[in-house]
Amino acid sequence: MKNNNQEFIPEWYEEAPKPKSYRSIFKWGDPLAFKHPNARLFSMLKEQFELTNDDFLERKKEGHEFVQTDQASRIQPQHVNSIASIVGNDNIETSDYARVKFSTGKTAEESIRLRDGINGPLTDLVVHPRNKDEIAKVVAFCHEEKIPIYVYGGGSSVNLGFQPIKGGITLVMQTHMNKLLEINEINQTARVQPGMMGPDYENTLNQSPELFQTKKRFTGGHFPQSFEYSSVGGWVVTLGSGQQSTYYGDAYDLVISQEYVTPKGNFVTLDYPATANGPKVADIMKGSEGCYGILVELTLKIFRYQPENQRPFAFIFPDWRAAVEASREICQGEFGLPSVYRISDAEETEVGLKLYGVEGTILDKLIQLRGFKPMKRCLCIGHTEGEKAFSAHVKKRIKKISRRHGGMYLTGYPVKNWKHGRFKDPYMREDLQDFGIVTDTLETSVRWDDLHKVHQGVREFIKNRPKTICMTHASHFYPQGTNLYFIFISKFKDLEEYKAFQEGVIDRIQSYGGSLSHHHGVGKMIGPRMESHIGKMQLDILKAIKNHLDPANIMNPGSLGLDSNDLK
Amino acid sequence: MKNNNQEFIPEWYEEAPKPKSYRSIFKWGDPLAFKHPNARLFSMLKEQFELTNDDFLERKKEGHEFVQTDQASRIQPQHVNSIASIVGNDNIETSDYARVKFSTGKTAEESIRLRDGINGPLTDLVVHPRNKDEIAKVVAFCHEEKIPIYVYGGGSSVNLGFQPIKGGITLVMQTHMNKLLEINEINQTARVQPGMMGPDYENTLNQSPELFQTKKRFTGGHFPQSFEYSSVGGWVVTLGSGQQSTYYGDAYDLVISQEYVTPKGNFVTLDYPATANGPKVADIMKGSEGCYGILVELTLKIFRYQPENQRPFAFIFPDWRAAVEASREICQGEFGLPSVYRISDAEETEVGLKLYGVEGTILDKLIQLRGFKPMKRCLCIGHTEGEKAFSAHVKKRIKKISRRHGGMYLTGYPVKNWKHGRFKDPYMREDLQDFGIVTDTLETSVRWDDLHKVHQGVREFIKNRPKTICMTHASHFYPQGTNLYFIFISKFKDLEEYKAFQEGVIDRIQSYGGSLSHHHGVGKMIGPRMESHIGKMQLDILKAIKNHLDPANIMNPGSLGLDSNDLK
Repeated sequence: MKNNNQEFIPEWYEEAPKPKSYRSIFKWGDPLAFKHPNARLFSMLKEQFELTNDDFLERKKEGHEFVQTDQASRIQPQHVNSIASIVGNDNIETSDYARVKFSTGKTAEESIRLRDGINGPLTDLVVHPRNKDEIAKVVAFCHEEKIPIYVYGGGSSVNLGFQPIKGGITLVMQTHMNKLLEINEINQTARVQPGMMGPDYENTLNQSPELFQTKKRFTGGHFPQSFEYSSVGGWVVTLGSGQQSTYYGDAYDLVISQEYVTPKGNFVTLDYPATANGPKVADIMKGSEGCYGILVELTLKIFRYQPENQRPFAFIFPDWRAAVEASREICQGEFGLPSVYRISDAEETEVGLKLYGVEGTILDKLIQLRGFKPMKRCLCIGHTEGEKAFSAHVKKRIKKISRRHGGMYLTGYPVKNWKHGRFKDPYMREDLQDFGIVTDTLETSVRWDDLHKVHQGVREFIKNRPKTICMTHASHFYPQGTNLYFIFISKFKDLEEYKAFQEGVIDRIQSYGGSLSHHHGVGKMIGPRMESHIGKMQLDILKAIKNHLDPANIMNPGSLGLDSNDLK
Repeated sequence: MKNNNQEFIPEWYEEAPKPKSYRSIFKWGDPLAFKHPNARLFSMLKEQFELTNDDFLERKKEGHEFVQTDQASRIQPQHVNSIASIVGNDNIETSDYARVKFSTGKTAEESIRLRDGINGPLTDLVVHPRNKDEIAKVVAFCHEEKIPIYVYGGGSSVNLGFQPIKGGITLVMQTHMNKLLEINEINQTARVQPGMMGPDYENTLNQSPELFQTKKRFTGGHFPQSFEYSSVGGWVVTLGSGQQSTYYGDAYDLVISQEYVTPKGNFVTLDYPATANGPKVADIMKGSEGCYGILVELTLKIFRYQPENQRPFAFIFPDWRAAVEASREICQGEFGLPSVYRISDAEETEVGLKLYGVEGTILDKLIQLRGFKPMKRCLCIGHTEGEKAFSAHVKKRIKKISRRHGGMYLTGYPVKNWKHGRFKDPYMREDLQDFGIVTDTLETSVRWDDLHKVHQGVREFIKNRPKTICMTHASHFYPQGTNLYFIFISKFKDLEEYKAFQEGVIDRIQSYGGSLSHHHGVGKMIGPRMESHIGKMQLDILKAIKNHLDPANIMNPGSLGLDSNDLK
């Protein structure tokens, strides 16, 4: 073991961003929470990027400047007054800071830009509605006056989902519309306001006996990477997936009923467990990203909270193909599905072994001893859950199948480490970017039989760029396929170079047969590709619905690729 | 035991219907297959309807007359020629018989009518397209000429789904477009033509090693009551549910991808296991009942065929509330779900004990001995499946929970009897109707907390009619609720009296909070109620899609309540 004193550790920034600074906007998550690359990861980064400790002596472009803009507000003062008269003067904001903050998501593009103090398209008025009636009034008013409306839920969009490309107003849902309204224990459903943040929702469900006098404790079962900074409504309108989706389903599957305010009027979708009453309007609205209307209330499935039944597991496989084949057999095995389930490709495995504390342990020695080769071996981690014996049985089957595919059982230890920091990995983004290294992700859905083609094709493109890390995992599983999640880390000379690279990655995902998005949604980033992805015929169907519900095109214009009015 | 010779058995009709007769159209299922009420059931019927053996001496209105019509065909001869030039002269029919046959589904209303030789609205031309290109040409031509198009899949609609209310042409899918095109063993999907009938599809999947050189055998997992006379495409466009839906999911859940021909053009929906690419066009088309376009090909999930792992079970519960509570606990128990799972209310239980051969056996004695009271006790039957130990564990948990709710285990014996005749119960309809007794069903989806209200309210209405049997079961289960399936048997003086009664039942279902349909679809029967069910706002969304894809309203006009063009 090395002596820590001898080790160089960069001066990672570790203060809360200054109030009203750019950094306070682009920094991921809790202002006071940090996660730095550990020594092993740092050393790997230096090696990959051919950097020395000297390159980590001075941080640059940290975004400590105060937010300001010279973009004049395009909203007319009397419109501001009208909206204020609906929501109250305390619930509108026009400051530069508010305009930038609520116009900005969490893309790498935005964080690169904001570090240079360059604002993107800005909203003209920030509105904090108190209830759905106020939203209905605001939407009716904006429809009348043709003022664009964007919705800011948790603010974690990574595809420019609520970027206000045409200006207008932004409704912030998390300020007031953040309550769990009702738990129906008989039906196992929760009625909730869309601005409730992930942890609040989950904690409230966990404490339902105390808060709602239920007999049982519940969980929402939805834990996206962005959990801490995502809202319940955002999960549904962007079709998100949680880290336990293989067991609980995606946000799409969790929805029982939704209430929408649209320029055309308001409605609540049916709340039956299943029906055969024609095409389901609920489905038409899921994933509509605010382009059809505003989700103002929703009823979701909830589940028994039984963390005591979780059974962790981890395996090391000889290679990616073995890990994939084992995963497919597991997902098609009809013995129940695991909850968290992730397989990392060879490059990510090397990082994972460092991140989850395996490197240097007895497990690591065992892995080497048994001949699992670096940059070939692949890590699998996860846990089962559900009823106690069910959970145990699923784990038992997973062990059996994994061993048959050459996997070595690594105990539950790596999972505990992963779980401990599972929402914290994005925090490292700032550390790296402080030294000019950009980290970003793109993800796609794949059929099993296309998986290797997409993985190899996209990896090849990313690795063709010198000094670039490309880590891939699959983390949401179905009997018919899975997702691929690409993390790439590299230095870019400017935003244009970065964006060209990012577009190149998406090109490859598309051309090798992956979907445009598995769980990040569409937004304005991949909206322009929608026609090439689903075809003009199908995009026109989505546009027809848009034209019907939002004829003035005020609802999140530019997202989903629905913006052009060339519908014939 | 009685001596069979002493028993009176009505002369149930037991010949294949005469070719070209009305009976050949309305008789359920295989012309040479019959299922008659057994002695116990017959005796119960006599008692309930206060009938004697004398009332069963003479059958009446059996529909043996040859089909004929004086409804002139409204299609122009040159249009017939144009369509014949697309599909070939051998693939069009204009005979009276074909026009009536392919205009008729399986509602009680239709069978009452046809026994009197009264035709309903008729198609003007029956077309048997050979492939999707022909369908595209026919649809384009009909769009141009404003000729309505209906689609006849398996022909088992019970809501006037393909009734040609405006005349026009009917495409029969089962004649040529009935092939399983591809099994993708890696992805576990099957690509299939929509006119393939249920048993052909299932048998082909079961024999996939021989027919498609797969390693494994597969099942489609979809076994609706109408299995023998339902088509794969029909399952999806009407949102059907199979008897094993609690495990395999509804038709809605089985779909991976669909290809449609619409007046606006053709498209194939994405075939990823999950995506976040905005609202899913696949979902918009599911349940569209031919009103948006014609389903010409589909890719479905398939599953391992492992009948050897099925574990049957049956219970008798002290009452309906106990059966419902046990079922809810099972469905929310997170240990995996049973496959077939049915609970019968008190009245159906008495019939079930007769039908499934329990009455008079040692089990029956045991039931009486243990104090389960007739007209209070409730039967539960089902089986588990999936991987062997999983299936065993689900059954074990079901037993434990059922016992806790006062259920007595009845072995797997009643399930075997049920299973043996599970697609045959509808065959009894003709026997009863031959003696003037009408049997029909209506079904609905309910949330758990509304279940008793809907059950009691609807039952009360049905039982208010003198001499009327009302049997109810729940047979498709979800964590958030189930369905209720009402079977009613009574004598009606004419079609009007019958229809008024049927409307009354639907009124009650709606007013007590049930959905308009759980798995029978909408059609023209409940189409007019769609606006009151989902509201004008939501119906207008469905109409906007209709107006976009089918601006001339030629696609199955009248179904789904989309017919009026009052969209603003």
